[in-house]
Amino acid sequence: PIAADKVWDDLPNSAQQAMIDKKIKFYVIDASSVARESGMGRRINTIMQTCFFALSGVLPREEAITQIKNAIEKTYSRKGQQIVQQNFKAVDAALNYLHEVKIPHQASAAFDLKPVVSAKAPAFVQEVTAPMLAGKGDELPVSKIPVDGTYPSSTAKWEKRNIADFVPLWQPQVCIQCGNCSFVCPHSVIRAKFFHESILENADKNFPTAPVSARGFPETRYTLQFYYEDCTGCEMCVEACPAYDPNDRSKKAINMTAKAPILQQGIKNIEFFESIPYNNRSSVDYSSVRGAQFLEPLFEFSGACSGCGETPYVRLLSQLFGPRLLVANATGCSSIYGGNLPATPWSSNAEGQGPAWSNSLFEDNAEFGLGMRIATDQHLHLAKELLQQMTPYLQQDFINSLMNTDLHVGSELRAQRQRVQQLKEKLKNIDDPKAKELLTVVDHLVRRSVWLIGGDGWAYDIGSSGLDHALASGRNINVLVLDTEVYSNTGGQASKATPIASVAKFASAGKRIVKKDLALQAISYGNVYVARVAMGANPQQTLLAMREAEEYNGPSIILAYSHCIAHGIDMKKGLEHQDKAVASGHWPLLRYNPALRAAGKRPFILDSPKPSIKLAEYAYSEQRFVQLQKSNPEEARRLMELAQESVDLRWSTYEHMAEQEPSDFQPMG
Amino acid sequence: PIAADKVWDDLPNSAQQAMIDKKIKFYVIDASSVARESGMGRRINTIMQTCFFALSGVLPREEAITQIKNAIEKTYSRKGQQIVQQNFKAVDAALNYLHEVKIPHQASAAFDLKPVVSAKAPAFVQEVTAPMLAGKGDELPVSKIPVDGTYPSSTAKWEKRNIADFVPLWQPQVCIQCGNCSFVCPHSVIRAKFFHESILENADKNFPTAPVSARGFPETRYTLQFYYEDCTGCEMCVEACPAYDPNDRSKKAINMTAKAPILQQGIKNIEFFESIPYNNRSSVDYSSVRGAQFLEPLFEFSGACSGCGETPYVRLLSQLFGPRLLVANATGCSSIYGGNLPATPWSSNAEGQGPAWSNSLFEDNAEFGLGMRIATDQHLHLAKELLQQMTPYLQQDFINSLMNTDLHVGSELRAQRQRVQQLKEKLKNIDDPKAKELLTVVDHLVRRSVWLIGGDGWAYDIGSSGLDHALASGRNINVLVLDTEVYSNTGGQASKATPIASVAKFASAGKRIVKKDLALQAISYGNVYVARVAMGANPQQTLLAMREAEEYNGPSIILAYSHCIAHGIDMKKGLEHQDKAVASGHWPLLRYNPALRAAGKRPFILDSPKPSIKLAEYAYSEQRFVQLQKSNPEEARRLMELAQESVDLRWSTYEHMAEQEPSDFQPMG
Repeated sequence: PIAADKVWDDLPNSAQQAMIDKKIKFYVIDASSVARESGMGRRINTIMQTCFFALSGVLPREEAITQIKNAIEKTYSRKGQQIVQQNFKAVDAALNYLHEVKIPHQASAAFDLKPVVSAKAPAFVQEVTAPMLAGKGDELPVSKIPVDGTYPSSTAKWEKRNIADFVPLWQPQVCIQCGNCSFVCPHSVIRAKFFHESILENADKNFPTAPVSARGFPETRYTLQFYYEDCTGCEMCVEACPAYDPNDRSKKAINMTAKAPILQQGIKNIEFFESIPYNNRSSVDYSSVRGAQFLEPLFEFSGACSGCGETPYVRLLSQLFGPRLLVANATGCSSIYGGNLPATPWSSNAEGQGPAWSNSLFEDNAEFGLGMRIATDQHLHLAKELLQQMTPYLQQDFINSLMNTDLHVGSELRAQRQRVQQLKEKLKNIDDPKAKELLTVVDHLVRRSVWLIGGDGWAYDIGSSGLDHALASGRNINVLVLDTEVYSNTGGQASKATPIASVAKFASAGKRIVKKDLALQAISYGNVYVARVAMGANPQQTLLAMREAEEYNGPSIILAYSHCIAHGIDMKKGLEHQDKAVASGHWPLLRYNPALRAAGKRPFILDSPKPSIKLAEYAYSEQRFVQLQKSNPEEARRLMELAQESVDLRWSTYEHMAEQEPSDFQPMG
Repeated sequence: PIAADKVWDDLPNSAQQAMIDKKIKFYVIDASSVARESGMGRRINTIMQTCFFALSGVLPREEAITQIKNAIEKTYSRKGQQIVQQNFKAVDAALNYLHEVKIPHQASAAFDLKPVVSAKAPAFVQEVTAPMLAGKGDELPVSKIPVDGTYPSSTAKWEKRNIADFVPLWQPQVCIQCGNCSFVCPHSVIRAKFFHESILENADKNFPTAPVSARGFPETRYTLQFYYEDCTGCEMCVEACPAYDPNDRSKKAINMTAKAPILQQGIKNIEFFESIPYNNRSSVDYSSVRGAQFLEPLFEFSGACSGCGETPYVRLLSQLFGPRLLVANATGCSSIYGGNLPATPWSSNAEGQGPAWSNSLFEDNAEFGLGMRIATDQHLHLAKELLQQMTPYLQQDFINSLMNTDLHVGSELRAQRQRVQQLKEKLKNIDDPKAKELLTVVDHLVRRSVWLIGGDGWAYDIGSSGLDHALASGRNINVLVLDTEVYSNTGGQASKATPIASVAKFASAGKRIVKKDLALQAISYGNVYVARVAMGANPQQTLLAMREAEEYNGPSIILAYSHCIAHGIDMKKGLEHQDKAVASGHWPLLRYNPALRAAGKRPFILDSPKPSIKLAEYAYSEQRFVQLQKSNPEEARRLMELAQESVDLRWSTYEHMAEQEPSDFQPMG
């Protein structure tokens, strides 16, 4: 965004010198502005391509422009004339914005390249992560690499990518503190805290806060912090914000603004924000979206796409169960953004507690996660056995209170954590090999939460046999399926989750088979907790399902609708698409809870109302369906009829199921 | 069964000579009689073991007997005191029946060893199969072995195993010609034909027949033929026979009798029987069990266990669709008895038409069968394309009539077969490379029936992902799951089909998880035909389901209850156990037909009545459940309660589903 006559002064000294030494020709273009103005949003590929041909001389300039336009016509015509025209406009505008910068004879900058990571980063990040980030990973000695492949978590926060030019700016006086924005943020860049106003004594005068929106706490302040350097500018938070400025209805409580002018203040604010402790889990009611915003995310700043539909679910999971979470992650997008070198988005809290995470193969992740459960149960069993042999050293009451490990209320879990802490202290002073042995497994006395995460390619297709096997085990595992209805990570191939009438790779003539109903298949077991959720349609139901799934002492599976770049949508409208998917009956929200049946209640709950729009209204807002309309209108019509019919049939099946009375026999164990 | 003083004369000359040359000591025991008389049925292992110790001198005789009894106590006590006492009785009786035969100084027999196979057997059987049967397979030159692994079918019939001492004998005057006996026969040894009485002019006077039990055919005779040399003596036919002799209520229309006295006449009768043509498919109504007995089985004399619960389904399949059947067989019992060297039970009819069969891996059989379907469709497509290019040579009417290949009525299929035969004749005389090409695929103009066969280990466990994928393909495949509720072929390991409260390997403390409901999982697709059948409870429903599955133009799956030696039952009572499984609600009979929904009818049909007995009444008639009662009565009680509850719950779910009205929307394509 820096003008041609100012950009030289913005370059670090060593970069200036290198350009002089190498006699470089130097051009600049504000491609982002061109893209925005020509309606291309944030896509600058066409613009940069035009500049390349204009400068490289590979072809005569006019001929190059003609060829580029031909290529655009060929590539994008099936996506519609509007897209083609936007690209043409961008090509034409590109050259007007392309400026040469004359390079002075001498380097003049008083500053040089900043270090790759902050000086506050821990040694591992300084010594291993930072060289990798700088593209110098090959220079690392083998001795620096973890011997068993275990990488420290909490490292993504040191990689300040600064990829967004526009970021959300908070208007404290308009905000209703609903928590929606942080709930939907795919990169965990929005954090909320409340605190006593006395804390502000040391704050910068520009540190934004508001009185907390709760009666009876006149001295409590609320703040919403945006991590601008980690924000991808997806705008989902703005879309999710329900609060309009009464003085200017075109503004909300958060609005996109250019980042450069506000960045420095923002960084200062974050520093102060981080000095305020996260709110204690006991002081917030996280059964509501509003309350959940105060839980610290232990999954942050991942490399997922801007506006990703998957990561908000993963972040929420980390907020709810992070300190005692074990994750088995199937190969797919979530394994890439979840464990991509050099930086790890999974993190830990101030006490050092956080998720343990590992990725296994596409075809065996469910078995892998089931193994985590079995290992954990075995460790707990061992811990209990050893604990019972500590009677010579510990009070029986204390032992008894530690033995109840199946704790489901937050306050009980916290009390158990404290007891375990006490136990550790005591064990250190007991001179008995059994005490030492107990120390190695003592943390398992706090109930572990085991989650199997993956996409539809895993759960519906390649790993389905293992998933079925794990669900059939009856063990207390939790499955989160991030359903993008397509193999997203490998570029959009059809899976058994791909809806009929949509276009995907391997289904380029339109998928002709109805999406597999994995929810019904899981429900057929009778003892599996099953939920289908869509955050964009009902965030409260998403939150409820996750908590119920975790609390249920048996297998659970949550199917989470995840909008995706593969759908051919404007990603900032992702939540709106989720809402339409539900409203059309394509994605009915449901929960099947065997615990309800055991209590003599109806176990199957339909959480979304009868479809209010036709399937086509939802489908034809997405390119994946529109494409077939363009390439084969007749087939599109035929398949859309079948699709509508299958939606109707499924809805009637679900309605019927929701009406079934629980059996009047003994509850199942 | 031959007495010690007569057995020498019954030995072939070369065997006599070998015994004299080797100075062999020769003992005989009629172990089968001992086993029968001591209540051991057909189990002679204990008896033979006793003889071994009595003769070998490894231990002093009295000590050996004591040790054998200790071992029996240890091995069988968990199966009950009755089993132990029967074995004791057998041990004590064994020595009384053990006789030494004094060997004369000279061989005296006027006859010698018979050839391994009949002189009528084809060259391949004479040259390859027979040496293998004789245990001389290693002497075969490589050049004799089929180069591509394709073995000829119809070879099991040349392997006359003669393993039964007692076989069923038909009483024509008592028989009501219902067809039940041949319908349940696991080894296809019972065949029925009707024919004009004039055929009997050349028959032996002892060839048994009866007037056909049908009005209006006074000159038509009926016969029921038993292949004694292939019979395993399982007695299932006798159990299935509903006709009692009015003069002696202890007798039925078929009764077990010693084989030796009737064998020679039986072989003569078979020879004549085989000279009578099988009844034309157009002349029988095979929609009934009674009619189906006249269809020629194209699966016969397999090496399956005596009384096998799987093979009657496989045989029926071969009767119904054999001439145009393609089978992809998963690894398991059915792949072993279906394609075990040296002999192949899959066979062909007089016109040379019969099933093509292949076995693939446990984990990919569904994909393998789906591939058969796709290949077949492709061949048909090619045949049609080439056929349409034959207009210069063939009449358009003839071409048109050949083009309709989706024929579902028997008479239409037969007409198409005749047209294809005519077409072949014509093509031979057309001098056009396209005509020659068409000849290579012309048989595909008769609709192929593709079946994927396997056990529960395949369908519920190891191949479940592929099965799910194949069902989701929407293609016209048919799946037959031979559900023994356990990995039968490898010795009885638990699968996801194993019922709760039963004992199996890997579930020796009792299976604690409810059997997976594969039917419901398949029904969730909406466009998959699903049936659950049990021949012993309702053979007519089994027949109906197979025909509906084949007729449905989409994926179909049939779950067939198959009693098994692994269940710890008296195998001759296998059908009774099937009946109890249904009566108790353990195995509700159902059909889900998407074609009915398309026609505006209720698609889900419950074919069995409300459970009339408690689950325990069925379960505790089988050792697999009784074992847990013995080893852990408390756990058995707990699990049986859960089992009963799950039966009740499933029944109520099914009843509810059966009540659901079809959606009132457009029928699905």
